Amino acid sequence: MRTIRASIIGFGSVGQGVAEVFLQKREELENIGLDLKVVAIADSRGAEINNEGIDLSEIIARKRETGTIASRQITGVEIIRNVEHDLVIETTPTDVETGGVGLENMLAAFGHGRDVVTSNKGPLALKYRELMDVAREAGSGFRFEATVGGAMPILNLAHDTLAGNKIISIEGILNGTCNYILSRMMEEQASYEQMLAESQELGIAETDPTNDVEGSDTACKLVILANSIFGMDVNYNDVDVTGITKITPEALILANDEGYTIKLIGEVKDDLIRASPRLVPIGHPLAVGGTLNVASIQTDLAGTVTITGRGAGSIETASAILSDVVSLYRP
Amino acid sequence: MRTIRASIIGFGSVGQGVAEVFLQKREELENIGLDLKVVAIADSRGAEINNEGIDLSEIIARKRETGTIASRQITGVEIIRNVEHDLVIETTPTDVETGGVGLENMLAAFGHGRDVVTSNKGPLALKYRELMDVAREAGSGFRFEATVGGAMPILNLAHDTLAGNKIISIEGILNGTCNYILSRMMEEQASYEQMLAESQELGIAETDPTNDVEGSDTACKLVILANSIFGMDVNYNDVDVTGITKITPEALILANDEGYTIKLIGEVKDDLIRASPRLVPIGHPLAVGGTLNVASIQTDLAGTVTITGRGAGSIETASAILSDVVSLYRP
Repeated sequence: MRTIRASIIGFGSVGQGVAEVFLQKREELENIGLDLKVVAIADSRGAEINNEGIDLSEIIARKRETGTIASRQITGVEIIRNVEHDLVIETTPTDVETGGVGLENMLAAFGHGRDVVTSNKGPLALKYRELMDVAREAGSGFRFEATVGGAMPILNLAHDTLAGNKIISIEGILNGTCNYILSRMMEEQASYEQMLAESQELGIAETDPTNDVEGSDTACKLVILANSIFGMDVNYNDVDVTGITKITPEALILANDEGYTIKLIGEVKDDLIRASPRLVPIGHPLAVGGTLNVASIQTDLAGTVTITGRGAGSIETASAILSDVVSLYRP
Repeated sequence: MRTIRASIIGFGSVGQGVAEVFLQKREELENIGLDLKVVAIADSRGAEINNEGIDLSEIIARKRETGTIASRQITGVEIIRNVEHDLVIETTPTDVETGGVGLENMLAAFGHGRDVVTSNKGPLALKYRELMDVAREAGSGFRFEATVGGAMPILNLAHDTLAGNKIISIEGILNGTCNYILSRMMEEQASYEQMLAESQELGIAETDPTNDVEGSDTACKLVILANSIFGMDVNYNDVDVTGITKITPEALILANDEGYTIKLIGEVKDDLIRASPRLVPIGHPLAVGGTLNVASIQTDLAGTVTITGRGAGSIETASAILSDVVSLYRP
């Protein structure tokens, strides 16, 4: 049995999902020879540390009841620097302007030789090459399946499952909020504003939906795909982005009459990285509805392989983090 | 550099595709530390053997020009027994009645401690448990991604990429010929017989289409999924099968008016293994058209993940074989 000592830095929806999943999968992890011990958790107000392993059901209950897990005034980056552990699970919120505390946390983790598994897009969308270089020099593992498409396992699919294939292009729907709004506009023949309001009521869109509907969330994910699968060296500002705010129900009805629907499609190939609304034939693998994410990977041998899944949700994102943890440490 | 000595037993469309792919990917394989040498190839009329490695471009040309590669009268199973090598790539045609020569070849390979990668469904649909037991006792590797869904990597996706997840159910379109016929019946509002004739003209359906249209090809693939992913112990005769021959264009039009299409769906869950025509909502991830295959994997954490790809084709099937070879031997 191999013992992995982990911290969870950031204890919002994704961090709590990770704790729940670790709790639920303790036996399965032990069955494959992994004893995963969470020795520190930080949220924005402080931290809990226990070298013997934190009681995860107690800490989840504490967070829900009191709004924080803080039992002492210590920050995430201080935990990364000072608590002895192997793996930093970085689940702080994405900041695409500066990389935010996530960038500081990842660099600190590599600086102390720790592995990182993350759901935080910001640092990867801004400083991909630098982070990879620092991780490699430190000999640290670094995995980030959860940053693109939540539970839709696109990075591991392209890297491992399609082994032997050259990846020619990737295109897909990488933002569930936009997909929901466009799908509902088509179904209800309603305006963008009406369906944005509906998706905000349902908690699908945030109060400030800019990152989703203007395409910048999609752009971040494209940058991660471009750098990690195509070996490019690009950042968030290199993406050509058009959002969905100007699409009308009339355009959707016209498209439908011709056998098409309109989707916010992100695409990466050669030197093109673009997110924009595009016509997709009904019945095409990319024409999925609701909040689903989808990505089509064009390869030299396997042809085009398309993967569809839930792009968001705390347990779904935690599932991607779990698969990265298993990949890193499975004997 | 690790040298892998391989035979290709069966040199029809898939076997030739494997030779082409090995030729094309020699450098990529060397880059990951694998020197793959094909030391023997058998077709139905004889074999070629070369301990230094067969010239693959010469042998492909010979097959195309003369219809056989036979330079000596020796069968596949004799090669497996007598030629020193590590890996048997078994690509003889599927026989679901008896398992055919494929079953004999696989048992001989394990009996001599060789690994097997195969595209041949028959032996796995009839004798899954026996084959797994013999392979395990021999310490042999045994992989068969190419048996289900061609280039659609469903087995490796369920086993590896979704690591940590419990698989609850799988449902999908596992036969491209049926999907083509149903998609075209809908598009043209034409009869089953008309669209079968069209797909035979295009080479999509075989002259005797029974295995495809009556659902037995789908049934074989369901058995492989049930045994390998769900740990069941079932065979071909345990599947509840209904084909597509009785579907009318009127039924498709009626379904379409209600926002549905009709697909031949295979499903595995708990104690249910069934292939039958079912209504699928338009826009649903399973509602893909043309000859595509698709499978939805329902999991406890990641929710439902759907994979779509080309279910047939010699290079596509060879791609699945290549990914299995890489998985077996990647250092």
